[in-house]
Amino acid sequence: MECGLLFSAGKDSSLSALLLNEFYEVTLVTAHFGITDDWKHAREAADALGFPFEAVELDATVADEAAERMRADGFPRAGIQTVHEAALEAVAAEYDVVADGTRRDDRVPTVSRATAQSLEDRRGVDYVAPLSGFGRGAIDRLVDRHLSVESGPSEEIPKGDYETELRARIGSEWGPEAVAEIFPEHEQTRVVGRD
Amino acid sequence: MECGLLFSAGKDSSLSALLLNEFYEVTLVTAHFGITDDWKHAREAADALGFPFEAVELDATVADEAAERMRADGFPRAGIQTVHEAALEAVAAEYDVVADGTRRDDRVPTVSRATAQSLEDRRGVDYVAPLSGFGRGAIDRLVDRHLSVESGPSEEIPKGDYETELRARIGSEWGPEAVAEIFPEHEQTRVVGRD
Repeated sequence: MECGLLFSAGKDSSLSALLLNEFYEVTLVTAHFGITDDWKHAREAADALGFPFEAVELDATVADEAAERMRADGFPRAGIQTVHEAALEAVAAEYDVVADGTRRDDRVPTVSRATAQSLEDRRGVDYVAPLSGFGRGAIDRLVDRHLSVESGPSEEIPKGDYETELRARIGSEWGPEAVAEIFPEHEQTRVVGRD
Repeated sequence: MECGLLFSAGKDSSLSALLLNEFYEVTLVTAHFGITDDWKHAREAADALGFPFEAVELDATVADEAAERMRADGFPRAGIQTVHEAALEAVAAEYDVVADGTRRDDRVPTVSRATAQSLEDRRGVDYVAPLSGFGRGAIDRLVDRHLSVESGPSEEIPKGDYETELRARIGSEWGPEAVAEIFPEHEQTRVVGRD
């Protein structure tokens, strides 16, 4: 069965790909808005991992809505959730099985049992989250053994996740101070290959 | 890393074994009480799947407590949960990674995020539930493609799960009517090999 796995070039979605590879024909899918070409960093990571890759452009209104929400909230959580759900819907339109890298301990994005069931029923797909039964420690240990990663501050690690484009979108609308306020500095990790 | 996966010879724990096999050295572990030798059915299934097997005998007080609780409740849910948690503790005493086959839609046993974190912190292990991000439909489709199963009423399908021994324990204490009252008739599935 064809599985479209939402992919950011981060650890969780990369490890998910290795787990699902046993059971599905996995394509790594990066959702973007056409704001920047950072999705190409995800394509590079997919090549390094040895998986087929697809970029899916979401409607610009999704980015607008997420940016407005983040600006209003002062933090990114609800906006990221909005984008993630839109990305799942886009993948569900193309694949039999929709997957993402959400973990047991994730606070955002999360996919509740009800949201998962709704996606499955409306779209006639299976939604699978292979890491949702794994905690942070288990994932770190598996990443150490199976993946090569590089780490650094968000602006120096080119990833293909929603955050990169939303930072650009918010920066162009409200300036760099708004970006700094909404996205506190945190370490990013990008996968560069398999071990 | 050595992973002890709780194993009943059912579909969920068998599929979990195939998923975890990619990342861990998996041993299938069946917890029992020494009431019957039905755990040997689990050993047969483990052999058919090609995994190492271990039987772990739990303290008889766990069976007593679970049986009393089921008798008092009139249904098995809380008693099964008690046994499952005791089995996880027993596996955690021996393995670096403790796993089970709980699914997204399971009502019992369930392992909450708090219970998982507590087990990990107290025992210094990772707890992983590889199917907790999979719904019933996805699991059924994977079982169809990867496992050979046989199905039938509970009393005709020899499994190695807790229910078999608890039925025997309750029957010897309170008679067959108590067993019939507590465990409504339902279809069981036993895994007999890989496809």
